[in-house]
Amino acid sequence: MTSYFRPGIDAIAGYIPGEQPKPGIPVIKLNTNENPYPPSPAAIEVLRTLDVEWLRRYPDPFANEFRQAASQALDVPADWIIVGNGSDDLLNVIIRACAELGRKVVYPMPTYVLYQTLAEVQGAEFVEVPYEENYQLPIAELIAANGAVTLIATPNSPSGHSVSIDDLRQLATSLSGVLVIDEAYVDFAEKTALPLVKEFDNVIITRTLSKGYSLAGLRLGFGIANPALLSGLFKVKDSYNIDAIACTIGAAAMRDQLYKNSCAERVKSSRSNLFFDLKNLGFRLWDSQANFLLTQPPIGNAEQLYLALKEQGILVRYFNRSGLSDKLRITIGTDEQNQLLVETLTHLV
Amino acid sequence: MTSYFRPGIDAIAGYIPGEQPKPGIPVIKLNTNENPYPPSPAAIEVLRTLDVEWLRRYPDPFANEFRQAASQALDVPADWIIVGNGSDDLLNVIIRACAELGRKVVYPMPTYVLYQTLAEVQGAEFVEVPYEENYQLPIAELIAANGAVTLIATPNSPSGHSVSIDDLRQLATSLSGVLVIDEAYVDFAEKTALPLVKEFDNVIITRTLSKGYSLAGLRLGFGIANPALLSGLFKVKDSYNIDAIACTIGAAAMRDQLYKNSCAERVKSSRSNLFFDLKNLGFRLWDSQANFLLTQPPIGNAEQLYLALKEQGILVRYFNRSGLSDKLRITIGTDEQNQLLVETLTHLV
Repeated sequence: MTSYFRPGIDAIAGYIPGEQPKPGIPVIKLNTNENPYPPSPAAIEVLRTLDVEWLRRYPDPFANEFRQAASQALDVPADWIIVGNGSDDLLNVIIRACAELGRKVVYPMPTYVLYQTLAEVQGAEFVEVPYEENYQLPIAELIAANGAVTLIATPNSPSGHSVSIDDLRQLATSLSGVLVIDEAYVDFAEKTALPLVKEFDNVIITRTLSKGYSLAGLRLGFGIANPALLSGLFKVKDSYNIDAIACTIGAAAMRDQLYKNSCAERVKSSRSNLFFDLKNLGFRLWDSQANFLLTQPPIGNAEQLYLALKEQGILVRYFNRSGLSDKLRITIGTDEQNQLLVETLTHLV
Repeated sequence: MTSYFRPGIDAIAGYIPGEQPKPGIPVIKLNTNENPYPPSPAAIEVLRTLDVEWLRRYPDPFANEFRQAASQALDVPADWIIVGNGSDDLLNVIIRACAELGRKVVYPMPTYVLYQTLAEVQGAEFVEVPYEENYQLPIAELIAANGAVTLIATPNSPSGHSVSIDDLRQLATSLSGVLVIDEAYVDFAEKTALPLVKEFDNVIITRTLSKGYSLAGLRLGFGIANPALLSGLFKVKDSYNIDAIACTIGAAAMRDQLYKNSCAERVKSSRSNLFFDLKNLGFRLWDSQANFLLTQPPIGNAEQLYLALKEQGILVRYFNRSGLSDKLRITIGTDEQNQLLVETLTHLV
């Protein structure tokens, strides 16, 4: 049969997301970095009382209610903010606006697997620069790769490490293309690179409400950059990419920084405990600034351990990729969930 | 200043959506073809009682609850259905999967303005074939244009006419690329081209919940085609393009066909009345199978009339484009709203 697709699409496999069992199925879900705590009560209240008229009508293409709330929470002007249907949508929009055949997508490895998929779908060459020992950023090689778009996730997945602001500044100074600083996990970290968007006209920071704000099901992310950089992205993004419910619930969540921060503190405290417990079980671990730990089990076979845990109703993330196939990425759950994980592992390793 | 964007993005203007005043601002909104009636009570009930766990977790990448509901409502297998963040998202996915430089996007004119924007962003050549007199489909010219993607909106916007199933069948038989039949307005029409997806492996039908189901604010659309055709689209679509709320509310709306059909009947009856009233005021009109009327005002200047109506708190759609600049597209409102429009027009034309 003839293909109806362009050759670049026939050639690729597409992104495989983590397993998403339905709510109601009894499973301890530590595989896709959701926050273990529910969203802000203020956000839930919006859901319960939403004016139905918001459903009947098209949403605001600029999601201004959300932008206002984010503007106040982050102390950046509202017109420096662009919204996306999750930050994945924004990453896609950035790559579509800037990259194509002959305009490269560059990122250090290992990192978020989606960057490769987005570059492939766009038909842009991608350059993967290996991280140095202990996750030092390979600045010179990244600059030499000359990306139209260079992506740095910080905190990075699956390693959990943060890139220093000085390293990011050095990169931003030397790159001739756009630098995307993907801060999906920043709510669990000690620092943000946010000040860099004011210093550099080629820097965009992307954020999400999926992790810190416990709203992965809502699909809401945003980018922060100067309005000139955003102007090209607005041409590419779908006018109605954010639904009316996401805009209003997201705004309420953004106004409740106190709640978000208190949940993040609990996750960070649990992260320390889980780190210690897994270390005691003989795991190799890396310091994490995110809501997960990259771990190397003491037994040789990470995939077998992933399957054994799954059989016990505990989902963690196994990546069958170079440099990661001997490791597991484990999301920080509640203290109860983490304890059950540790107890289960005691019998398996 | 150097541009960070690829040249194709710098060269385009981007899509300008219709005005979207906030709910609460007193305006009669007849400009973007929303349904004047609220969504199904069953859909609203879902909103009020939704398990918050759906918000915390990532949604189902395949939106299977919605697919099951749509499968039952339309009598097609669930795996013949793909979901989009509005049908706009799906149109974008189809064009990204199939078109690029050297693989053309083809459609008759006038039609939905977004087709051009999507082709431009993708860097694909687009061929616009003018409709014949009285909106006869220019089949031979469309076939000769040899699109990798050919798009036919039926009922078409802004004209409101439907394309015959025989014409679509003839087109599907002769095209070597994909035929997209955009049925955004089909809930107000007498016929659907749905049977064609079973006859042809190159046909995809796109639908939306924005019009017939009164859920424009929710962003939910879907496509129906054979699984082989959908496989390439799944590689391009974002895994989490549909949020968990849209999936569950959409499924409830889809299960309530009775309510949807009763609203559509009211709209169709109001459409007849408004047609008659505008005719009496001297407007030229075209038969419509959609929830709007294309109208040519008796006074020469459509743009001035659009502005005069806006001043009176009534929004209609004016397109400053060739062949349309002497016309207005008017969404069918409630009988009350339509009556107010007619009374206001009585003083203006």
